[in-house]
Amino acid sequence: MGWGDLGVYGEPSRETPNLDRMAAEGMLFPNFYSANPLCSPSRAALLTGRLPIRNGFYTTNAHARNAYTPQEIVGGIPDSEQLLPELLKKAGYVSKIVGKWHLGHRPQFHPLKHGFDEWFGSPNCHFGPYDNKARPNIPVYRDWEMVGRYYEEFPINLKTGEANLTQIYLQEALDFIKRQARHHPFFLYWAVDATHAPVYASKPFLGTSQRGRYGDAVREIDDSVGKMLELLHDLHVADNTFVFFTSDNGAALISAPEQAGSNGPFLCGKQTTFEGGMREPALAWWPGHIAAGQVSHQLGSIMDLFTTSLALAGLTPPRDRAIDGLNLLPALLQGRLMDRPVFYYRGDTLMATTLGQHKAHFWTWTNSWENFRQGIDFCPGQNVSGVTTHSLEDHTKLPLIFHLGRDPGERFPLSFASAEYQEALSRITSVVQQHQEALVPGQPQLNVCNWAVMGHLAGPEGPRLLPRRHRPPGATPEGDPRGPHRLHRRRVPRGRIQGASASARAEGSTWALRVCLGEGFWGPSGAPGRARCLGSPPKGCEVGPPRPPRCAGALPAGSGFPAQDRRDRVARSVGLPGVPKLNPRGPAASLLVPSASWY
Amino acid sequence: MGWGDLGVYGEPSRETPNLDRMAAEGMLFPNFYSANPLCSPSRAALLTGRLPIRNGFYTTNAHARNAYTPQEIVGGIPDSEQLLPELLKKAGYVSKIVGKWHLGHRPQFHPLKHGFDEWFGSPNCHFGPYDNKARPNIPVYRDWEMVGRYYEEFPINLKTGEANLTQIYLQEALDFIKRQARHHPFFLYWAVDATHAPVYASKPFLGTSQRGRYGDAVREIDDSVGKMLELLHDLHVADNTFVFFTSDNGAALISAPEQAGSNGPFLCGKQTTFEGGMREPALAWWPGHIAAGQVSHQLGSIMDLFTTSLALAGLTPPRDRAIDGLNLLPALLQGRLMDRPVFYYRGDTLMATTLGQHKAHFWTWTNSWENFRQGIDFCPGQNVSGVTTHSLEDHTKLPLIFHLGRDPGERFPLSFASAEYQEALSRITSVVQQHQEALVPGQPQLNVCNWAVMGHLAGPEGPRLLPRRHRPPGATPEGDPRGPHRLHRRRVPRGRIQGASASARAEGSTWALRVCLGEGFWGPSGAPGRARCLGSPPKGCEVGPPRPPRCAGALPAGSGFPAQDRRDRVARSVGLPGVPKLNPRGPAASLLVPSASWY
Repeated sequence: MGWGDLGVYGEPSRETPNLDRMAAEGMLFPNFYSANPLCSPSRAALLTGRLPIRNGFYTTNAHARNAYTPQEIVGGIPDSEQLLPELLKKAGYVSKIVGKWHLGHRPQFHPLKHGFDEWFGSPNCHFGPYDNKARPNIPVYRDWEMVGRYYEEFPINLKTGEANLTQIYLQEALDFIKRQARHHPFFLYWAVDATHAPVYASKPFLGTSQRGRYGDAVREIDDSVGKMLELLHDLHVADNTFVFFTSDNGAALISAPEQAGSNGPFLCGKQTTFEGGMREPALAWWPGHIAAGQVSHQLGSIMDLFTTSLALAGLTPPRDRAIDGLNLLPALLQGRLMDRPVFYYRGDTLMATTLGQHKAHFWTWTNSWENFRQGIDFCPGQNVSGVTTHSLEDHTKLPLIFHLGRDPGERFPLSFASAEYQEALSRITSVVQQHQEALVPGQPQLNVCNWAVMGHLAGPEGPRLLPRRHRPPGATPEGDPRGPHRLHRRRVPRGRIQGASASARAEGSTWALRVCLGEGFWGPSGAPGRARCLGSPPKGCEVGPPRPPRCAGALPAGSGFPAQDRRDRVARSVGLPGVPKLNPRGPAASLLVPSASWY
Repeated sequence: MGWGDLGVYGEPSRETPNLDRMAAEGMLFPNFYSANPLCSPSRAALLTGRLPIRNGFYTTNAHARNAYTPQEIVGGIPDSEQLLPELLKKAGYVSKIVGKWHLGHRPQFHPLKHGFDEWFGSPNCHFGPYDNKARPNIPVYRDWEMVGRYYEEFPINLKTGEANLTQIYLQEALDFIKRQARHHPFFLYWAVDATHAPVYASKPFLGTSQRGRYGDAVREIDDSVGKMLELLHDLHVADNTFVFFTSDNGAALISAPEQAGSNGPFLCGKQTTFEGGMREPALAWWPGHIAAGQVSHQLGSIMDLFTTSLALAGLTPPRDRAIDGLNLLPALLQGRLMDRPVFYYRGDTLMATTLGQHKAHFWTWTNSWENFRQGIDFCPGQNVSGVTTHSLEDHTKLPLIFHLGRDPGERFPLSFASAEYQEALSRITSVVQQHQEALVPGQPQLNVCNWAVMGHLAGPEGPRLLPRRHRPPGATPEGDPRGPHRLHRRRVPRGRIQGASASARAEGSTWALRVCLGEGFWGPSGAPGRARCLGSPPKGCEVGPPRPPRCAGALPAGSGFPAQDRRDRVARSVGLPGVPKLNPRGPAASLLVPSASWY
């Protein structure tokens, strides 16, 4: 979801009355940022309070490469990271995640192993449908159990856009709140993904927006937020519940206009470190504590939600590691402003830094010329010469600096000769040096050396499908009783046996498809540096500890795609025609609008 | 001022608390339009309820040419037009205009000859300073009397941006409200121009905005609106006063980033018929009548303020002419939506039409390649291939159609083959045909055949400077008692004698500079078609009724500039070096941000 998607942030159709009211009753942050222009790293940052470069949610496959956790990634949230629900447990909190986890899909990364007490949702987005032979659909879990898969037990009609998922996620949230509100302090992380392409909404919302299907999805999320706030009032716990709404990255514009959101007046969108990629809508609500109708110009970060939540629970963040999140309570309760930098990373590369009103770009890049010429455009209709570059441009010697107050759209770099430039550069350089000198990067989790891991269905460690079809609580698609599910019935065989055999086939094809692009190598079920492999590694890949890339078919640095697409193209480039595409709908589907995070 | 300049429309710095509160207490229109992407035509449309093509506020000098009323334009609002204050007089209203008139500066166009009872302001923007020899500064009037000139009696410090003008205009408004509120129904047209480059603010506001000087100006306007609304409450007439805030055209982006506003997510700005050029902020406020916190998706127009105001006064619009303004009261009071088209003209050319959510472009154009290569950019950072064209592109056979709900930024034209395109085209074509068949264009008032008219200082008909320096009510610049005025003292000789001699010199140079680009010709003091000339007309110009252009030095159609700049370049092209430039700061100054209209 993008900064400009809410009425209160200027969306012209003004279709978010509940979120707008939440803003009117609370505090709005116009200068609030995700920790990354992509979903998984941003969510890992939210839950750890640490930049992805610290918690491992980045790749060293290539310089400045975006990466997330498609099914084939073996990495995930390291056990060494302390997640917000783990810490809140010390204060008696019960925690639930509803929706997309995105912090790894192999058993050791399960949310219930990282502090959550309950989970209803999926380890990944609702990409698909897949053929369930070489590649199964994404699973949906209730706690430890797989209760079905997208496009199967949880139908999504790609043609009409109908899916009941947001209603299911809403009911899960309401149910959790009702159960916990009178007994325990609780932490709900509501991570819906209806605004992530393929965009969906339930029947009562479909076709109701002036903005098309994307707007339908936004309207349903808005309506759900309204229902949750209403329940808090009804349960008389509103004045004891801190609620924050934000998003994990800017609206993806490559799916525009049908399935893309709005980043308001900002430059570009998801995948980029321009404002459109990382500035987010952000609303705080806590009746009786946060005064109504306030705007805070505090530079905020999704990582602050970690520190702020701990502070609310009377806890302090871990002292044995760097924490990037601020405690926002002084801003929320006393209207104070705290100096802090915002760091914009792509993968392992610090692309830009904002301090006060000034933003310095050390590197500029949207995507590669190759991708751009194929029609993949992260900045449709926008072109700022020398800024929205299609090659990775090094400005570290002489950064481009913008004043975000006068020029929120990053169109007019300050003159290098100006006193303002010199002053801003000096301040920012000092902060960046300090940051980089103290930085201890985490072990990169999002490198790609194997694309047939699919841990969610792998052998004995893998999940078990519940024996009966899951019936969503209180939400059944209307119309044809067979529902949109039927559309994919022929393409998506169901059930445990097929899943297992698909898994076997996937395992069997592992080595043929294995490519090694980064400095580390992991086998299909090994941990970093301790690979366990079947058969012989393919040419150019080795089993062993991290080492510099020596892979066949490696792409030049800076092709601008997350691992998934790149792998696909590499697979083709090393002469493996007929390899099933990771996403049958092409690379666009792996790069689209993120879900909104709400917790 | 642009659509995106108010906090309530999403401006990230959120520096308009008074306007935002006005919206919260009243009704916000996200789909409200000016009648033209330039100031004079839009203001003429506001006061007549008629499109500029009807009321004469356009030029036939060239196809699709923007034009306004610089000092040298002899045209103005025709006597045949019935202005809102003229009509309101029938219902006992007393009317005042504060600020920029812009409907002609020759004696017959004086606002007090067109229904206003009072005027404090200027016939034009605050361009300058000029040399007061070949070209005097723009005068400021109180009613019939010239009370001074910008940069002289009304100083504007271009270096610091300091000017007390908005404070003066505020005091004039407050004074008028106080005087009238208890005795007569009143109509106040508050037409400030602080956000028009050169942008200014008074000392208490200078340097207070995160957005730079433009933001300072916006903050002062916002503060002034707050004071006016407060006074209405204090006088207990708030529930009997309808207040509307809007702007006359989108933010001019060529003065970005220092002196430009924001058009939010929309394409381009002033001078263009993309949404950024004509979609405006619009707030209606009438406590006790318009319910608080409403949003109306009614397609609205600045011309509706004419019809709506008449309806509020119990009057009907003239029946002997076409009126384009709708009565918005059903939208304001009952939340109704009325079907209506929005027509986007440049000069004599219907560029685009919006009906419902669909906008069809019949012509696309920003400015000429020639201008663009000189760095004049109406769409900085934006480039939509085939849409933001630098030649006037004819799409009349196959219009480009956008869905403004899904694609407010006009980036993705609908597929010509789609059913949606066909349906929208059919609806829009029908409405446009009806419009064009019934259209009777007015006599064009903004053609340029002479650029030494300067009626505001010409001989016996001209204004008289009051003998003593005007002291603004309750607002004196702080600091150096000589004030910023001193900076220009040497360049700007003052007083009646110099003005008169400058006038004589200007008169003397009339013929040498005269060029004729249009189908009509006017002498320095003649009315259209009845020119009275000194000496012989220059080659290519004739005295007489309108006829096709046969001028020397005419520019090719589509150079993208209003008359002023074009004239300047024509003068050079016919071999007259040394002609003083109309604006010493170059063409940018004649194309910048418009003022906000409030009435």
